[in-house]
Amino acid sequence: MANEWATFGADLHLELRGPRLRAGLMDALREAVRSGRLEAGTRLPSSRSLAADLGMARNTVADAYAELVAEGWLTARQGSGTRVARRAEPRRDGPRRTDPRRDGARPAGRPAGSPSLALPRPSTPAHNLKAGTPDLASFPRTEWLKAYRKALTAAPNEAFGYGDPRGRIELRTVLAEYLARARGVHARPERIVVCAGFMHGLMLLGQVLRSRGVRDVAIESYGLGLHAGLLTGAGLGTPVLPFDERGTRVEELSAPGKSGRSGESREPRESGGLGSVGAVLMTAAHQFPLGGALPPDRRAAVVDWARTSGGFVLEDDYDGEFRYDRQPVGALQGLDPERVVYFGTASKSLAPGLRLAWMVLPESLVGEVVAAKGAVDWVCGGPDQLAFAEFLGSGAYDRHVRAMRLRYRRRRDQLVAAVAAHSPDTRVSGIAAGLHAVLALPPGTEQDVLRAAAWNGLAVQGVNQFRRPAVPATLDGLVVGYATPPDSAWQGALQALCRVLP
Amino acid sequence: MANEWATFGADLHLELRGPRLRAGLMDALREAVRSGRLEAGTRLPSSRSLAADLGMARNTVADAYAELVAEGWLTARQGSGTRVARRAEPRRDGPRRTDPRRDGARPAGRPAGSPSLALPRPSTPAHNLKAGTPDLASFPRTEWLKAYRKALTAAPNEAFGYGDPRGRIELRTVLAEYLARARGVHARPERIVVCAGFMHGLMLLGQVLRSRGVRDVAIESYGLGLHAGLLTGAGLGTPVLPFDERGTRVEELSAPGKSGRSGESREPRESGGLGSVGAVLMTAAHQFPLGGALPPDRRAAVVDWARTSGGFVLEDDYDGEFRYDRQPVGALQGLDPERVVYFGTASKSLAPGLRLAWMVLPESLVGEVVAAKGAVDWVCGGPDQLAFAEFLGSGAYDRHVRAMRLRYRRRRDQLVAAVAAHSPDTRVSGIAAGLHAVLALPPGTEQDVLRAAAWNGLAVQGVNQFRRPAVPATLDGLVVGYATPPDSAWQGALQALCRVLP
Repeated sequence: MANEWATFGADLHLELRGPRLRAGLMDALREAVRSGRLEAGTRLPSSRSLAADLGMARNTVADAYAELVAEGWLTARQGSGTRVARRAEPRRDGPRRTDPRRDGARPAGRPAGSPSLALPRPSTPAHNLKAGTPDLASFPRTEWLKAYRKALTAAPNEAFGYGDPRGRIELRTVLAEYLARARGVHARPERIVVCAGFMHGLMLLGQVLRSRGVRDVAIESYGLGLHAGLLTGAGLGTPVLPFDERGTRVEELSAPGKSGRSGESREPRESGGLGSVGAVLMTAAHQFPLGGALPPDRRAAVVDWARTSGGFVLEDDYDGEFRYDRQPVGALQGLDPERVVYFGTASKSLAPGLRLAWMVLPESLVGEVVAAKGAVDWVCGGPDQLAFAEFLGSGAYDRHVRAMRLRYRRRRDQLVAAVAAHSPDTRVSGIAAGLHAVLALPPGTEQDVLRAAAWNGLAVQGVNQFRRPAVPATLDGLVVGYATPPDSAWQGALQALCRVLP
Repeated sequence: MANEWATFGADLHLELRGPRLRAGLMDALREAVRSGRLEAGTRLPSSRSLAADLGMARNTVADAYAELVAEGWLTARQGSGTRVARRAEPRRDGPRRTDPRRDGARPAGRPAGSPSLALPRPSTPAHNLKAGTPDLASFPRTEWLKAYRKALTAAPNEAFGYGDPRGRIELRTVLAEYLARARGVHARPERIVVCAGFMHGLMLLGQVLRSRGVRDVAIESYGLGLHAGLLTGAGLGTPVLPFDERGTRVEELSAPGKSGRSGESREPRESGGLGSVGAVLMTAAHQFPLGGALPPDRRAAVVDWARTSGGFVLEDDYDGEFRYDRQPVGALQGLDPERVVYFGTASKSLAPGLRLAWMVLPESLVGEVVAAKGAVDWVCGGPDQLAFAEFLGSGAYDRHVRAMRLRYRRRRDQLVAAVAAHSPDTRVSGIAAGLHAVLALPPGTEQDVLRAAAWNGLAVQGVNQFRRPAVPATLDGLVVGYATPPDSAWQGALQALCRVLP
């Protein structure tokens, strides 16, 4: 489909050959356009993001784009990015592209025929192990529908109107009970604000912090660029906390020098040092993507920093329900509800498509966050919130989480066993939790493995795709989202993964 | 309930007496707090908004607030607004407040007993004729549930995942067909972007226009302050187009002087003149709130301006489905789909609680709007979009709109007849359309009528609550949302309205 978004560099399935990277990139892009694999109108990743994906210098990519624009293969327009030019439309009478699903058995590194015939199309890889999505085939349709019907039938009329910006009281009441029980969160309904996903909540917090005069929100060395971008979009700097083998070095927040990574950054928006940090965004229970849990002394240290400095910890508890080797550690928020903002979501435990998430706020922030949310008056729909309240209150949510915990744990065990059998040099790092694992690769091999994966129709990402620009590359690894495929595709995806490991 | 939002000044049901306005306001507020009618923690309207509601100078209100804070009745905290102080909590052992619903028959202007006993509580007025909400009791629960069940059962798994920022293709496809048929919109699915309400769409457009270098978006003389605030929040100026008895004077956009109202504005954010206007936000089919339809020559003129200047018309078609005296005039967008951005919504035709709206974009804007929406990845939920696609595609939406059209038309006829019978000096202005009517009042009477309405437990707004600060007060009138009450409350609300008319 034209205008399809090729968001991640890996989706392009390019293979760069030879020493002259730029020429190689241009050849690969030309070939992808000529063959029709990249259709007219398709938007390419930004040069920065493609460079990061490919491990190349940004200028190399930017130069290649510029030359291809000059040659008429691509077009570049202010604000609309770089796209495949219309005049580069492939002939439709040529040979059909091979169905990538029939190529699953082709060994890595030996592509058959020309790339234009053998490669899967962008955004429809044969196997998907990208992290971030639960098994959507396991969405409990019948149970959800039952909750929805019950909620819709019993709903007061005003539930169909413009809602309270805090969210429905029915939902906040059951959430408070659930979060206290399942995550050790100090939650009261009046401290909870429902939002349409973590990003929505983070945007609101960013606005509030900025309007309070906060300059910087510290972030972890590895994480989602979208989250950092949301903070910089709110006018906040995002200095990076360094990390070591025990996780994020939160003690740097209180260190006398407070230098952080910022001095080394070539990104002006990430600079600023740790001296003016007013909040820190953390995935304490299960670092995303590296997979560690913040050790107890550092949990205490970051909350201490917040108390001493008057700052806030923004706790992104995205997959706290899933821990396989023990009881989950409670939320950081339990240590100090007045200094930690807790963010939870149904996106991993149930489905991102419901757009349901929640914040538990310190009392001092409630008014401002509600005002920020109320001023722009879109919230989750009333019926959806009531359905989720019913789903949660009836125990259906607990049952679903328990069932998924067993399923994901089994998959993780199978992943660990398969990796041990096929690739003794590869180590599964991180705790037994969540929906993804990190396979630590031998130094310098990540790009090769990612390329082999692309050739095999396997969508998967490397840890360096989550590395903040200011952080030096010291790790090689794959971030494997083992929850992503449906059961029917899991074994095939696992086999594809094993084929590409060193 | 504590912490309840008293958003509109009229909700406070204050009556100011005597020449010393500030003292009178302070007395009224003290009495409201003492009696418990304003509970501890309740947030008061901003001084600016209360001043506008009461027709007072802003400083008068701000001074009264400040003195009451000093006296300990109120608290004021940066960012959290002015609230009723906790120590001002009323004694619970006092006499019970009278149920406002039993007060319906009390004649206007003769309040019985003390205000603290006789007045309804904030935000639970006995009668509600505020515009902006359809009859929520008529939400077609059974039909919606049927569509939801069918959609959920048939949904592909990926509908539960992170969605395409444009919205579900199933919904965009049926929307394109519907909008062409019902509103004369030139719509193709690839030009449609689903959003979580008009405000969400306007925010996205504001971001895109600002990043294109647009400085100002012109707005109508009367409208919702929230919409203007969204634009100024995006960094855009909002110069005001003047109006006359035929509606908004769009020809001023192309006039040599291009002075607009801006020179007269005391609001710096509304200034800027009409010289640097890059877009204009309009309710062309049914001006909100004044109720006129933009005449054909002005429809043509505003589109001509956009063509000539390279600007855009942002068409807020919030209630285009409802016209009672003839076939609705088609959308402005039909005149030039490349220069008009069409905004539609299910908030008036179905329910605001669904958070479903859509934009039809000129081709030149699609990429940028999708990028703005995709970068912050919250969209309407997949299941909801599929349910609405099913609801629309099955004809249930058309049936619902037809039924509501009959019902609202009957209510409007009853309103017109009742006003003619009870208040010959009051004229119903505007076209027979939508969910609200404007009752034009004799000059200088609007505030009196609003105060009488408050005493009668009738929530209703005056046209001056929608007047842009830069526009001189020349009209008096009531904006009557006749769709708001359920059937069971309609006759009572109508009677309450007639009691307070001159």
